[in-house]
Amino acid sequence: MSEHLLDELRQRLDDINLQLLELLNKRAALVKELGEVKKKSGVKKFDPVREKEMLDRLVQQNQGPFDDQTIRYLFKQIFKASLQLQVDDHKKALLV
Amino acid sequence: MSEHLLDELRQRLDDINLQLLELLNKRAALVKELGEVKKKSGVKKFDPVREKEMLDRLVQQNQGPFDDQTIRYLFKQIFKASLQLQVDDHKKALLV
Repeated sequence: MSEHLLDELRQRLDDINLQLLELLNKRAALVKELGEVKKKSGVKKFDPVREKEMLDRLVQQNQGPFDDQTIRYLFKQIFKASLQLQVDDHKKALLV
Repeated sequence: MSEHLLDELRQRLDDINLQLLELLNKRAALVKELGEVKKKSGVKKFDPVREKEMLDRLVQQNQGPFDDQTIRYLFKQIFKASLQLQVDDHKKALLV
């Protein structure tokens, strides 16, 4: 019985993992697009005020079970990885 | 024009952030549930083989723009935070 339940919960976890993967990459593509628009408009890519606002908004909306500190930490990792993507694009552009 | 486009892209980013927040917490709740079932069945909470399988599957499905290394890194952070949630629950139970 509980073996069956374990399998079912694991299957649901795998589904959520794939949804997260899709959403993370959707976010990454959007950040790349934003980077392009910012470049054309002469707006700086990294905006610490805007990043802080995003984090504050997420913590405000956080209903758990993850605590606010963990949400901040995880999103900071996501933001950093996304920004790195813009830097990589810039490097590639310089090499062309 | 591009200021308007920037706003629109930022709005879409905020939407994705909230969807990610929701999905991360949905995952966290599921991991807590899994932890309970594992405890009752005497199954160990941390299963490095299963974690490796999940990561491999995610990388297999990864279509970018995030590269495989980044996907592995981000999901490892998510896995670690989720496991911590089970440890915290266990500590709380010991304190009751």
